[in-house]
Formats: sequence, C-alpha cells, structure tokens
Amino acid sequence: MELHDLMRRLHVKNDSKIVLLVADGLGGLPLQPGGKTELETANTPNLDALATAGTLGLSTPVLPGITPGSGPGHLGLFGYDPLQFQIGRGVLEGLGIDFDLGPNDVAIRGNFCTIDAQGNITDRRAGRIASEIGAKLCTKLDQIKVPGVEVFVRPVKEYRLVVVFRAAGLGGNVEDTDPQKTGVPPLAPVARDDASKKTAEIAAAFLKQAREVLKGDAPANFFTMRGIDKKPHIPTFEEIYGLRAAAIAVYPMYRGLARLVSMKVLDAGQTLDDQCSRLAQAWNEFDFFFLHFKYTDSTGEDGNFPAKVERIEQLDAAIPKITGLGPSVLVVTGDHSTPSKMRSHSWHPVPVLISAANCRSDACTSFGEAQCLAGGLGQFPAKYLMSLTMAHAGRLEKFGA
Amino acid sequence: MELHDLMRRLHVKNDSKIVLLVADGLGGLPLQPGGKTELETANTPNLDALATAGTLGLSTPVLPGITPGSGPGHLGLFGYDPLQFQIGRGVLEGLGIDFDLGPNDVAIRGNFCTIDAQGNITDRRAGRIASEIGAKLCTKLDQIKVPGVEVFVRPVKEYRLVVVFRAAGLGGNVEDTDPQKTGVPPLAPVARDDASKKTAEIAAAFLKQAREVLKGDAPANFFTMRGIDKKPHIPTFEEIYGLRAAAIAVYPMYRGLARLVSMKVLDAGQTLDDQCSRLAQAWNEFDFFFLHFKYTDSTGEDGNFPAKVERIEQLDAAIPKITGLGPSVLVVTGDHSTPSKMRSHSWHPVPVLISAANCRSDACTSFGEAQCLAGGLGQFPAKYLMSLTMAHAGRLEKFGA
Repeated sequence: MELHDLMRRLHVKNDSKIVLLVADGLGGLPLQPGGKTELETANTPNLDALATAGTLGLSTPVLPGITPGSGPGHLGLFGYDPLQFQIGRGVLEGLGIDFDLGPNDVAIRGNFCTIDAQGNITDRRAGRIASEIGAKLCTKLDQIKVPGVEVFVRPVKEYRLVVVFRAAGLGGNVEDTDPQKTGVPPLAPVARDDASKKTAEIAAAFLKQAREVLKGDAPANFFTMRGIDKKPHIPTFEEIYGLRAAAIAVYPMYRGLARLVSMKVLDAGQTLDDQCSRLAQAWNEFDFFFLHFKYTDSTGEDGNFPAKVERIEQLDAAIPKITGLGPSVLVVTGDHSTPSKMRSHSWHPVPVLISAANCRSDACTSFGEAQCLAGGLGQFPAKYLMSLTMAHAGRLEKFGA
Repeated sequence: MELHDLMRRLHVKNDSKIVLLVADGLGGLPLQPGGKTELETANTPNLDALATAGTLGLSTPVLPGITPGSGPGHLGLFGYDPLQFQIGRGVLEGLGIDFDLGPNDVAIRGNFCTIDAQGNITDRRAGRIASEIGAKLCTKLDQIKVPGVEVFVRPVKEYRLVVVFRAAGLGGNVEDTDPQKTGVPPLAPVARDDASKKTAEIAAAFLKQAREVLKGDAPANFFTMRGIDKKPHIPTFEEIYGLRAAAIAVYPMYRGLARLVSMKVLDAGQTLDDQCSRLAQAWNEFDFFFLHFKYTDSTGEDGNFPAKVERIEQLDAAIPKITGLGPSVLVVTGDHSTPSKMRSHSWHPVPVLISAANCRSDACTSFGEAQCLAGGLGQFPAKYLMSLTMAHAGRLEKFGA
C-alpha cells in the first residue's frame, strides 16, 4: 500500500509523544434540524481551548455514505485502509473477548440453535439462552478433541460463542453453516478454496461430536458457524511508523483491535481516571498512546442524547490529565458517528481535533461538527489521520528533494 | 494514468494564454495561534483584487501530512502525480545545476570526503571545502576517461558534485557508495538489477582512477556516490495538454524541473522584473508560462517572517505587469508551504488563486490561508490544478455526451 510504503520510507524517530484519544461514536446529529449535536451541546471548555489553538476537521472512516463497524473504524484511525484490511466476523468476535489470536488460528463465530428430531433448525438463537447457560455449554464443547488441531471454545454472550481451531496451514475460507432460516438443517462446512479443505474437515468432525455432546441440552442442542476466518496479515504499527505504541482501552474489542496492529495492550483499569493514571505511568516507555473511551458510543446506541452529552463532558474533564503530561501531539476524534437520534453507528463524518505546536490554526473556537466543517483539515479520509499526526510530531522526513 | 489520458483525450487548442505564477514555499503559519501568516500579513492589493474576482482554494502537494521537496512539489503543479513520477537525488542535483540530462544519462550526486591511509573515511564532507576548491577538483575528475562512456563531472557547491555517465543502455539502479558513517571505507558500487551491472562497472572504474587523481588533495582526497539514477520517463507537457509551454525561472533547479516535462526554458534574467519583461517578449510564442519566484521559500527557510512578507509584497507589485498582458487564466500558488516559524518546507496545504473570466467567484476578498480555506476550490490534490486551469482556459472538451 502506497501510504504505508511512504510512512516506512519517511518516518524518523524523535522524543515526541503522541496521544490518540478516541471517543467511540463521537459524531452526532441534532435532534431537530438546525439544533445542536451532542458534542455541540456539551460544555467542553478544555476541548474548546484545544480547538482554538489547534486545527479541526472531519474524517470519513471508509467512503462517503459508508457506516463502519468498530473494526474498520479503528483500522482507519490507525492509518490502515479499511477496504484493504478486512477482518472476518469470527476474528472480530475473538478479539472482542480478548482471545489472543495467532497466525495459525481460524476463528469462528458460533450461534447456539435449536434443532428438532429431524435435525431441522427450529430456533436460530436457541431462545436467546442466558449467558450463564451459554458459558456452561461452551465448557462442555471445549472438551471435544479433534486429531491434529487444538480447539478452543469460549462464550461471548447469551447464544453467541467463539470457536478457534489452531493448527499450521489451515485456510480460513469456509462457508457459513447457518442456513439463515428455520425448517432446514444446518449446512455442512464447505471450503471455498483448496487451502481451506482441511479446515472444513476439522469443522465437520467438530460439529459431529458437538451434536452428540449437546443433544440433551435443548433449546441449545446444536450450534451454527458463521464468519469463519483467519486474522489477516497486517503490518505492525511499529514497522510502518517506527512508533512504540500502547493501547489503554477498557473494552476487550478495542484491546483486540490494537493487538491486531501489534500495539502493546496495557492494563487500563475500569474508568477514564484509571486510564489516565496508566497513561502517566507508561509515559516514558512509549511514543504513541491509543486511549479508548467507550461510553459516547453506548449512550448514542441507547438513543440517550443527554447521557451522551454527559459522557462528552466527562471526557472533557479528563483532558487536563492528558495535556498535563505535555504531549507533542494530542488528537481527539471518534472511530465513527453514533447519533443518539439514530440509535446506531452512522456514516456521518467524524469530528477531528489536532493539537500541536505547528498546527495551522483556523478560525474555530470550539469542538463541534459545525466548527469542524470550517476547520483547517477539511474533510479527509480517516486513513490519513496518522500521516497528519506523524507530520505534526515532526516524525516524517521530506518526500523527494 | 487516468488523469493524463483524460487530458490527452479532452484537450483542445485555442488562443488563450495561461500564466502559472509559482511563489516557492508560499504557504505559511502564524507565529502565534490565531495570528496571521506571512501571506495574510503582507499588503497585497493586487492579489486581493484577483482573489475578489477569482476563486481560491488550498492544494495538497502529495498526500495529507507529507512534506514535499521541490521536485514533487512542482511535478504536482504541472499535473503529474508526484507518487507516480519519482525523481532520484542524482537527477535532481543535475537539474539543479542546469545540466541537460538526456535519456542515456545516469546522474550521480557526489560528496567529496576524506580518507585515511587505510582507505577509511574520516570526514564524509571533506571539511566542507570551499566551492572554489570543489570546482577545481571537479575539473581534474572531468579529465578521467572510461572506455565506452562519456563522463561529465560538475561542481555543485562546497563538497557536492554531480557525475554523469552517458552511454546507451545504462541502467540507473545502483547502490550508494556512501556508507553513511566514518571509520569504514566507501562501499563498492553494486547494481540492483542486471540492466545496471554495466553502470556499476563504469562507476567502479571511474572511482579507481578518481582515487589516484585525488590522492594528494586532502582533505578532499576521495568522493562518495549517492542517489545514482536516470531521468524517469515523463510524458511531455505538450503531449498531455496540447500547450506550448515556456518556463521563466531564475534558479537552475526550477528550469531543470520544467525541462523534465519538456517545457521550453527561456532566459529569465536575474529579477522578477526581468522575468516579467521576458514574459511580455515571449507572449505570442507560447500558450502557457511557468513563472517561478524563489524568495518566498528562501526567506521562509531562513526563518525570517518579515522578509518573507516583504518578498510577497514584491511579488504583489509585479502582478500588474502580468495582468497587463491580458492572460486568460492567471494562477498564483506555491509548490509547498515553507513557514518561517518552522524554517523548512512543511506539509500544510498551499494557497491557490485562479483568476479567469469563468471563475465561480466565492466570498473571498483577499489572498491568504484562512480565506483560501473558505474558497470555492476547496482543498484538493495539487495534481488537479492543471485540469482546473485547462478548464478555465476553455481548453477542455466535455467528457462524454
């Protein structure tokens, strides 16, 4: 990829410290046309001070109109084109439970389901069993042995589980066994290429035993497989940027995404305060810190506008703890928008704030979508955030003479 | 390349005259956040009048965050993607001393160095010898004969020189001989591909003789080779745009860059006044004129904010001499930013002004970075400046029916 090759070629090392503060789902919408978004409604004196001296803009996570999941959203922020580096559902599910996927692992998202005496599916989610039941069934499935492969079965939540097959040379290109409807039996796992034939055989052998193991456990008396995939080959953050990078994230999914690009994942504690303390502690050991704040997204998904406003104000209150450390570059942004009005992720461009000594400051005096639209960074693909960040940190040499 | 193919297909000829006035390193930064840049500080009544009637914008020379050298900066302005057309250091150095590189030439940047009795380098820059000494040593080296190849040795400045090997079929892919450290001998020239083996042999034969020739000339008793390269194949400006193009530049580097795309290089004299007179003289012979003004960059590199402001005012004063000729399109821009605050080229977007009859004029009333940010051209990759210019000159047909 051209952008990464440029970064490899131009990056230099220096003593600068970079903080990327990601408020998940930061971008929003006004409840009424002409009104204010969550970010514009929030009282954010610290962010506004950064906005005044720094530069604002709006990033497009994938392409205009495309709503990203957490995976593509974060990969974009880390400077990886989310269309080039795609991550299977099984892998994301594994990352989401902090499972440390290696290069020999095939990850599968499983759904417990109910089958009848004829083997036809009667409920694709097994009556949404409680998480405790799902966990017990996973413990049983985890005992299954298939020759020549290590098998891991881990619960996610309710009827969802992750299965991992670990063996050298397994391909990750196998069709789902979930037929996406009831009244028919689950499909057999079918390889889409030669390299995945062994994987399909292992999956079939595993499913055969699973049917026996689960047969008395109705409604969850079987499970289907979806999103069978391997972790893609992703060049490391350090190799591309020459940065020693640390992730300080409370939620497993974001630790997993950081691990995917080989950031060092630090113990983040439970709160933003914990995260800031960890940041201070680790300050001298790393060049780059990815701090993840989840609650701007979850309140947006709940459709709770005032709660999202409050979470943004909580984030604002933590800013002095970060700026107090004297970062050379502080970037505050989101991985996508999550307007509470829509109760979901959305495609709307995402507010970006870069604070650094050599910013070309713009006329903006507060951090919000309308101001970002007039910001000096303009609207740009999220994958360029890292080249901009590296530039502001003085970590890129001139291109050509 | 898609953009060039479009230009080839759509361009038409007419009587329009286009002037591209490049103020090198034009973009800047305020010394304090919220302050004014050099361009905003300068009193520029003529440029402001053009800005009022015309359209402004900001261009990104390469990619967001990437700081370009003069080569990529100018190629972008000429409509060549600087990532696609990359120019080696040896070639740029040759262009920079007005050496007319042909298709059979391999250009090499040389550094005089000091070696001890064991042949180890003790000073990679030979004590930064005076230019006169460097020039005398080059005259000696220029006498060296290598069978089957023409050799040219030319001084650049102080310890820097250019060596050119001219022969059919020479590859340009040879490793540097500069080991980048002292205490070790220079490296032997090693070909990176079969086509460059002969070049490496010639370089070795030349270096063997050079060692003899220079042995009594300590501290400059040898030299190392860097950036060994051929001029890349670049389609001509006239072939792409159908424009008879002339370059009026005082400094050799910019004449060289114009020559690279096969513009006709005119005698520019020494001053902006000289350049404007030359422009008037040549007005009927060409369709397109590239005028280059160096001093906005050099004052920026000196970190001299008021001097850069003064140079911009000097440029402004020359505008009536250009507009007096009645150009159909006048573009005023830079090849990159050189903020005096940073004393170097930078990645910040570059102010662009297009003045033409069919501009969609915007709300801007002066030429400066903040106004450009609100300008009608928005922020765009520099490589599109030429298609915009051609459009405003009425030189592009409709695409599709």
